[in-house]
Amino acid sequence: MSWKATVLTLYPEMFPGPLGVSLAGKALDAGTWACETVQIREFGIGRHRTVDDTPSGGGPGMVMRADVLAATIDAASPEDDPRPRLVMTPRGRPLTQERVRELSAGPGVVVLCGRFEGIDERVIAARGLEEVSIGDFILSGGEVGALVLLDACVRLLPGVMGAEHSGHDESFEAGLLEYPQYTRPQTFEGVEIPGVLTSGDHGAVEKWRRARSLEDTRERRPDLLDGIDPGKGGD
Amino acid sequence: MSWKATVLTLYPEMFPGPLGVSLAGKALDAGTWACETVQIREFGIGRHRTVDDTPSGGGPGMVMRADVLAATIDAASPEDDPRPRLVMTPRGRPLTQERVRELSAGPGVVVLCGRFEGIDERVIAARGLEEVSIGDFILSGGEVGALVLLDACVRLLPGVMGAEHSGHDESFEAGLLEYPQYTRPQTFEGVEIPGVLTSGDHGAVEKWRRARSLEDTRERRPDLLDGIDPGKGGD
Repeated sequence: MSWKATVLTLYPEMFPGPLGVSLAGKALDAGTWACETVQIREFGIGRHRTVDDTPSGGGPGMVMRADVLAATIDAASPEDDPRPRLVMTPRGRPLTQERVRELSAGPGVVVLCGRFEGIDERVIAARGLEEVSIGDFILSGGEVGALVLLDACVRLLPGVMGAEHSGHDESFEAGLLEYPQYTRPQTFEGVEIPGVLTSGDHGAVEKWRRARSLEDTRERRPDLLDGIDPGKGGD
Repeated sequence: MSWKATVLTLYPEMFPGPLGVSLAGKALDAGTWACETVQIREFGIGRHRTVDDTPSGGGPGMVMRADVLAATIDAASPEDDPRPRLVMTPRGRPLTQERVRELSAGPGVVVLCGRFEGIDERVIAARGLEEVSIGDFILSGGEVGALVLLDACVRLLPGVMGAEHSGHDESFEAGLLEYPQYTRPQTFEGVEIPGVLTSGDHGAVEKWRRARSLEDTRERRPDLLDGIDPGKGGD
């Protein structure tokens, strides 16, 4: 059975969008994964199919109604659906490669796309939603964040990238930035590829890459080093 | 003059993609911003238009050539182009709302989309590329990350969201998570909206929101509180 994504959104035409081409698109055509959308507006209230209302307590914008979202979730994902239910929101837990790997190893995901002003908080507990953030910036809605989540998961599905990549990912998952890459030509605008990389000495290449990985992480992202044993870095 | 994005990619058909609908799509139609793509393959080597080669020092996958990328950048963005040149990569500086605001206040961006195995490091210094990461996870390429960056920037362009939202963003930019939102109905599956929000007491609402914003940040994202004066939280 294929990995299945069900996206609850006011903009179903955004899916699969960029995931309909390249590797994810080929995997979609091959049936490795499936992408279903559910239009939240179909569960709107009254003849105008209203899905939102003004924020309680005042403030700009509109908030998506808990009852409308609950009805959408119930229709898209019955109680015995084994898939986790996510909602994209800047209030959520930052997405990590570890969580991506867990999600891609499961049966799929149900993803609710809120709009920036937010969704009624009560539906989160009522339907057991996992709040996921892709970063500390504000998007016009959850849809582009959902595309990020799906792209990250789909590339890990069996057969999508090819077996050769699995080890490569583990390096990133050690919690360090990747080492810099080089390829031909040997000289580019007067700058050579670092000699060790063309030396043919595999041990020296590994050592150099591990050192650069650690050095670049220390310089660019010292936050990633908290709680990591530097002796194990890059392994 | 409109804000202009030029995206250098092997998959131009991914753009504007999801940004062609909703608010970003309306702004695109209105000429508030423009989205141009440049196919990197047009600058490939030889009759096969080769853009990549195997990594120096070995390893899986392919690395994009510095000479091909430099030729693409030079054609897309002449030396006197005032726009910053970004490259989407997990090795980059994490994107923040502050950087988004700076970019959206400028003339636009040139965005190079690498593939996951990476680009030849030498082109970064040679063409002054700013490395940007949207999070600690791996995507199949820079394209979906570029869509995130553009969505975040475009919603801040004058007229896209409406003036009412500017204050709302500043709250997020104080470095705290947003407070939870509620809207009608008053009772959802037996759960009431917090009383203070429907009290009509604006001071009490503000105080509650500030407290919840700080409390949720402390619980979910203590990392955001480093270096923030808690007395100013949410202001």
